[in-house]
Amino acid sequence: MKILDRLFRFEVLERVLSQESLLEQMLRFEAHLAMAEAAAGVIPENAAVQIARCCTLNVLDMDALAEGAAADGNVAISLVRQLTCAVAAVDPEAAAYVHWGATSQDVIDTAAVIQMRDAARVIIGEVRRLCGTLKNLTVKHRFTVMAGRTWLQHAIPTTFGFKTAQMLDAVMTMQARLVEHNRTYSLLQFGGAAGTLAAFATGGGMVAADLARGLDLRNPKVSWHANRIPFAELAVSLGLLSGTLSKIAHDVVLLSQTEVAELAEGGSSRGGSSTMPQKRNPVTATAILSNCLRVPGLVATMLTAMPQEHERGLGNWHSEWETLPELVSLVGAAAHHAANLMEHLQVYPERMRQNLEITHGLIYSEAVAFRLAGKIGKAAAHELLKTATVGAQESHKDLADVLASDPRITKHVNGDELKRLFDPQQYLGSTQEVIDAILSCYASQPTYAPC
Amino acid sequence: MKILDRLFRFEVLERVLSQESLLEQMLRFEAHLAMAEAAAGVIPENAAVQIARCCTLNVLDMDALAEGAAADGNVAISLVRQLTCAVAAVDPEAAAYVHWGATSQDVIDTAAVIQMRDAARVIIGEVRRLCGTLKNLTVKHRFTVMAGRTWLQHAIPTTFGFKTAQMLDAVMTMQARLVEHNRTYSLLQFGGAAGTLAAFATGGGMVAADLARGLDLRNPKVSWHANRIPFAELAVSLGLLSGTLSKIAHDVVLLSQTEVAELAEGGSSRGGSSTMPQKRNPVTATAILSNCLRVPGLVATMLTAMPQEHERGLGNWHSEWETLPELVSLVGAAAHHAANLMEHLQVYPERMRQNLEITHGLIYSEAVAFRLAGKIGKAAAHELLKTATVGAQESHKDLADVLASDPRITKHVNGDELKRLFDPQQYLGSTQEVIDAILSCYASQPTYAPC
Amino acid sequence: MKILDRLFRFEVLERVLSQESLLEQMLRFEAHLAMAEAAAGVIPENAAVQIARCCTLNVLDMDALAEGAAADGNVAISLVRQLTCAVAAVDPEAAAYVHWGATSQDVIDTAAVIQMRDAARVIIGEVRRLCGTLKNLTVKHRFTVMAGRTWLQHAIPTTFGFKTAQMLDAVMTMQARLVEHNRTYSLLQFGGAAGTLAAFATGGGMVAADLARGLDLRNPKVSWHANRIPFAELAVSLGLLSGTLSKIAHDVVLLSQTEVAELAEGGSSRGGSSTMPQKRNPVTATAILSNCLRVPGLVATMLTAMPQEHERGLGNWHSEWETLPELVSLVGAAAHHAANLMEHLQVYPERMRQNLEITHGLIYSEAVAFRLAGKIGKAAAHELLKTATVGAQESHKDLADVLASDPRITKHVNGDELKRLFDPQQYLGSTQEVIDAILSCYASQPTYAPC
Amino acid sequence: MKILDRLFRFEVLERVLSQESLLEQMLRFEAHLAMAEAAAGVIPENAAVQIARCCTLNVLDMDALAEGAAADGNVAISLVRQLTCAVAAVDPEAAAYVHWGATSQDVIDTAAVIQMRDAARVIIGEVRRLCGTLKNLTVKHRFTVMAGRTWLQHAIPTTFGFKTAQMLDAVMTMQARLVEHNRTYSLLQFGGAAGTLAAFATGGGMVAADLARGLDLRNPKVSWHANRIPFAELAVSLGLLSGTLSKIAHDVVLLSQTEVAELAEGGSSRGGSSTMPQKRNPVTATAILSNCLRVPGLVATMLTAMPQEHERGLGNWHSEWETLPELVSLVGAAAHHAANLMEHLQVYPERMRQNLEITHGLIYSEAVAFRLAGKIGKAAAHELLKTATVGAQESHKDLADVLASDPRITKHVNGDELKRLFDPQQYLGSTQEVIDAILSCYASQPTYAPC
Repeated sequence: MKILDRLFRFEVLERVLSQESLLEQMLRFEAHLAMAEAAAGVIPENAAVQIARCCTLNVLDMDALAEGAAADGNVAISLVRQLTCAVAAVDPEAAAYVHWGATSQDVIDTAAVIQMRDAARVIIGEVRRLCGTLKNLTVKHRFTVMAGRTWLQHAIPTTFGFKTAQMLDAVMTMQARLVEHNRTYSLLQFGGAAGTLAAFATGGGMVAADLARGLDLRNPKVSWHANRIPFAELAVSLGLLSGTLSKIAHDVVLLSQTEVAELAEGGSSRGGSSTMPQKRNPVTATAILSNCLRVPGLVATMLTAMPQEHERGLGNWHSEWETLPELVSLVGAAAHHAANLMEHLQVYPERMRQNLEITHGLIYSEAVAFRLAGKIGKAAAHELLKTATVGAQESHKDLADVLASDPRITKHVNGDELKRLFDPQQYLGSTQEVIDAILSCYASQPTYAPC
Repeated sequence: MKILDRLFRFEVLERVLSQESLLEQMLRFEAHLAMAEAAAGVIPENAAVQIARCCTLNVLDMDALAEGAAADGNVAISLVRQLTCAVAAVDPEAAAYVHWGATSQDVIDTAAVIQMRDAARVIIGEVRRLCGTLKNLTVKHRFTVMAGRTWLQHAIPTTFGFKTAQMLDAVMTMQARLVEHNRTYSLLQFGGAAGTLAAFATGGGMVAADLARGLDLRNPKVSWHANRIPFAELAVSLGLLSGTLSKIAHDVVLLSQTEVAELAEGGSSRGGSSTMPQKRNPVTATAILSNCLRVPGLVATMLTAMPQEHERGLGNWHSEWETLPELVSLVGAAAHHAANLMEHLQVYPERMRQNLEITHGLIYSEAVAFRLAGKIGKAAAHELLKTATVGAQESHKDLADVLASDPRITKHVNGDELKRLFDPQQYLGSTQEVIDAILSCYASQPTYAPC
Repeated sequence: MKILDRLFRFEVLERVLSQESLLEQMLRFEAHLAMAEAAAGVIPENAAVQIARCCTLNVLDMDALAEGAAADGNVAISLVRQLTCAVAAVDPEAAAYVHWGATSQDVIDTAAVIQMRDAARVIIGEVRRLCGTLKNLTVKHRFTVMAGRTWLQHAIPTTFGFKTAQMLDAVMTMQARLVEHNRTYSLLQFGGAAGTLAAFATGGGMVAADLARGLDLRNPKVSWHANRIPFAELAVSLGLLSGTLSKIAHDVVLLSQTEVAELAEGGSSRGGSSTMPQKRNPVTATAILSNCLRVPGLVATMLTAMPQEHERGLGNWHSEWETLPELVSLVGAAAHHAANLMEHLQVYPERMRQNLEITHGLIYSEAVAFRLAGKIGKAAAHELLKTATVGAQESHKDLADVLASDPRITKHVNGDELKRLFDPQQYLGSTQEVIDAILSCYASQPTYAPC
Repeated sequence: MKILDRLFRFEVLERVLSQESLLEQMLRFEAHLAMAEAAAGVIPENAAVQIARCCTLNVLDMDALAEGAAADGNVAISLVRQLTCAVAAVDPEAAAYVHWGATSQDVIDTAAVIQMRDAARVIIGEVRRLCGTLKNLTVKHRFTVMAGRTWLQHAIPTTFGFKTAQMLDAVMTMQARLVEHNRTYSLLQFGGAAGTLAAFATGGGMVAADLARGLDLRNPKVSWHANRIPFAELAVSLGLLSGTLSKIAHDVVLLSQTEVAELAEGGSSRGGSSTMPQKRNPVTATAILSNCLRVPGLVATMLTAMPQEHERGLGNWHSEWETLPELVSLVGAAAHHAANLMEHLQVYPERMRQNLEITHGLIYSEAVAFRLAGKIGKAAAHELLKTATVGAQESHKDLADVLASDPRITKHVNGDELKRLFDPQQYLGSTQEVIDAILSCYASQPTYAPC
């Protein structure tokens, strides 16, 4: 294991993405290919049985595979060679039919599709877990007032539950997108040397359909050796999820700053320093930020690799092999960490309440301005309040006091009313309706069975 | 006009993406906002009428807008200021209600959404035109045999129509994706200062719904000031389209190489050189390649900008303003050029036929190998043919002749049969079935009304 | 003018990067080419004089250039055509020698080199201005104590001048790099159709040397049509500068947050909101962040474009034309804005001092730990302080008080000493020596003449 | 070992980049830190001896390190903890002084610097080997004529040695850049918690200087915790090298296309297909293309990570840990493969000569045009030749014959002269002078000792 894997990766996902798992899927492809071909009468029934029987990891010699990959430019050729030897050892005749009519890219891409589909399911699971924690936070903190901030400056009040509801909304969008992705793009790759399935005369379509069924994949109209949309689609889906998760982690670290202190990561034994005794660094959020920062570059690589030459490309195809699993690994771990982060999040409502007041009322100036605007016009009200806020700051007074002593204000707004304008609970607009809408959407969403 | 715009851009699209068009949409937003607010009883009916009447480009002073954008960090503030002045000139009371309850990002994002939706429609039109030409090429060349190439080497025969059918399949996928994008993400942005619609107490939802209707947009559950999925989604859709178009252009230039010469760009007066009289450079394909090469970096920028701070971000939001339209412009022009490229493409079937033979039969070695494999096993057949191809190359003989004089072959395959194995028309596998499937999909696809 | 240009661009730089300036440099190339060729006896003296005389912008028809660029794939061919016509009008014989022996890429690349060199000079000027303001801030605030922050958490004390000194150090590194870039890579491009200067028999080298001299450029050993290091080098230099500027802007916005309030942008009339009267957003820093966020993607594009085909590429070369100037424009404007930002920066030393104390002494825990470590060992001291900081937080006491009542501490550190450990001025380590070293480096650096 | 490592990686480099090597360098840092501190009188002499003695890999528990990295956000904290325990076991007093005054980032960054420096040396070695093979090819093929190609179309003749000379020129530039990088940026990282070296009062500078000496690193004016230029510089250097290597590999695969066949990869047993017996795919070039395609995205990530917060960042710093070694690994392996590729390259001069003639003389049209231009003017000559080339193509005649029968030509150019214009050896311009200049530069370049 790599030392940083517990920080940057998610173990369950790493198993799905392992080399062994890829080789297993490649062997599964070869087994199902033989069976589909036997069913179509292309190869003898018995050959298929023998081939399928040999399709286990223990027929492979890993060192020889590595050698072969370097000599051949992909791992399929030596895998097929080794499998053929293994079959030959038990049934020389059957060995004649291993990998019949397929090309290296057929088995490599299909195995990767299965691996990515399984990985996406793991990620969907973590995303769903994240949704659950966001739902809980929303329910609990729907009335927890705090400063809304724009441009990193206090704007107007909001609630913490409204913030988490918006996160929930965005994450649900991404969950649906991944589910849809798996539904649409769990595609068999099968075209033979140049996508024509030439080795089967016109019978290739039947073999393809049966093979897809056997592997529980969709059978596309045509092989996609040089049409990389299926893999590029996964890359961009993960790119969007990554941006969504990073936003959450980013807000958490900003709200955990020493001066803000409205949130903290859970887990008191985490985030120490090698030299500063008081430190409690936001380690989990940091891992999310780190992973997600690396994603856009990898997405760009997947897009750059799309224009592959003629029937099958060189270099560009190869560049996907490590890039896509890396993307999946980073974003999946970010999802896992995000679920943990929000599950154990420390929320400090009192501090949120206090921070609302650190500007001595400036955060309520929009509220007052809108109240006045109905009387004296929006522009005039805005100007009046702008002057008052500057005055309050310069004289180190509360904005409420400054306004209470200004007849241009008091003419239109009496004392009680003014006081109410400085109550954040009175200026929450549609937050509660929106929260209800998002929670109801969460409640009604189908419990996605792995797709 | 910029001198390179006719090379790199598509005029119709540039008009949609123009600054004037953005400002017009911003004014439309303000007009419809006022009307929706009047309908909800938030502002006086008459004020809305006056405001809407003033929402025309001629109320704007461009220099002052530019000044304002620099001072305020966005163009909305001075636009609202100028609009307010214009309204005040005709009805001072109405001026009080301009931009009521909205924030700068509401008007900027919504105007951009409309602009991008209209732009996507233009692109969809070009993509559909491209599909039409690909369909025509497919129908015309479904039997036009040529060399299939993998790793930039001859592989086995295919047909040109099979190649264009696969392009058609990929481009139709992208067309559907863009249509779906417009359907899903033509979203109103409306949340006020911090997304809470606080200025409306709890009435904001009604205003939002009415405003969305007025602008013919969808009304999301919540504003998406800091959830950039809607714009990032467009970026990645265009990234995928770009890769798809680039693949087409890439194949065209490869097949247009002097030594290959199976294709050429149409338009004989194009692509000359400043010094070489014989030159006819593939200018249109080059413009596509150039535009598309620039796309992945821009997509990465859009993804990097996603994690925006708190309720509304700084810097990251701003970085979208020029990046997304640039992406749209480049990919849209690439689509336009691709439609032109394929429409005027010169196809040389005779040369395709000739090139099939330049390896003196090597391209048919898989066909022979599969024929033999049934007799002597796949591995043995592969090995036998491998030796024969090397022998043919070294002795500068045709592979057919080498094989015809090898008793290990002739034992299993007689002369006529051998001859047939060197006929590309006999080794096209599923190409025709696939072409039919794709053409039928093309025929049946709904004539997408602009969505 | 584009409305956002005053926000995102720097006018002086935009003039250097304008289309007119590029065309002027292209005409200058043609003039100097003719003169160099006349000097070498390749073309008649008089022809050169006539050609040079015609090399002015007014011989060009912009619409026809745009048409030509679209038809030919670059602007040089029609520019040469138009120039040839203009020369022919005054001296038909001289017209025979326009652009003699050169290829389109020679004139386009060379003109771009000159433009980029001039642009880099402008940027160097802004960077130098930024260095000056950073120097002033360093001198003024070298003793201004504030919280040092790591992982967005308070760490130990530092001074604001120490922070700006480090910024100065980084920016000086970048300045030197740009100067060196201009010295190394202000290269003539001149190779003819395929880089061989074939049109000159073996005399091309002399023409090249003379042409380089005339244009005040370096003459490389060989043309670099398909070796894009010179332009890619500029791109990465700007990428590094961008990261450096973005770090400065990022720190400014973080220190300007409402809760931190240690810095603010100057210019009180800037950064308002369309709806919130109290708002004063950090507009200049935002423009820097926005511009710099867009840079890595553009750098990636320039690197992706490097592997150009054979003697001169297609698509990849073209993709540089808009990408590199865009990079230069964005980073140059960021440098300009950064100089302005730091020049007008509001610094609040009192608030810095206050923020040091908001953790009630926790920020001094490392200082105490090191004092104790000499007595009881580092690990034990670290552990003891860790417990004490948790205790202080839970009991809402000052760390100093907690420690003063702990005999395990007082055994080793008496009251006065303990007090001194909570004085930030006593824990500044090497800050002043470092500041001196950086200031002295600033003082001694050569006043770079434009290179 | 990963199965694709022999294809995509370079074993020697992987050892340098291994986890063990990083941990060893971290321990070396701690040992030298203790010794430098003892020399400065900061810690007891004996403590330093004991600490240094314990700084070996066998004191580390890898599982616990992995656990620690996940809990602390970096591996240094648990490494220091484990080292402290190990020292305590032999000398409890000495254990008090482990990691004295340093912060996690000091040891992590410094260890990475050493690792990257050593890795860069390995890469420089491969680059030098590549230069040697390019030099040999240049010497051997300086007169080997072939078609120069622009826009993937035949342009004018060149020689293969001229092509490799230009590659050599570019690669030498990159070699010098890497050497210079190691000279400039082999920097100690040492600043303590916030870069102030506060734990040493004012004595930190002396410790730093001594520590740098001990580790054979440069001692910068100030620590660079949040100034990531040193690592970003390495990233961009590798980005430029990557583009340079990719161009070489790209040209090789283009010239190896079935229809071109002027080059082939050496190693006849490589590059087979799982289904096509005749296949010999360019595997080594493909690995280079694949690795290099992945580089720009990683460079963008390193640039995006530059703006780190305050004294030390979160997320962005962490994102470098895997990204930079990955970059180094990919580009280093590409350099290794490129040296192999060019060393074993099969060059077919006869085919190059034949391909020059496949356009039946069109490739010589510029030569004829320049000869005529002296008589009838360049534009007229260009036009005349343009017509002639079209005529030759349409009538399927040789251009030479078409011209020989055109009195407008024969009036100015007699038969012998015309013949000479169709001899590629007569139209090589400055190629030989340029080759000499580049070879002489190669010969004179200092045999860089590892820097």
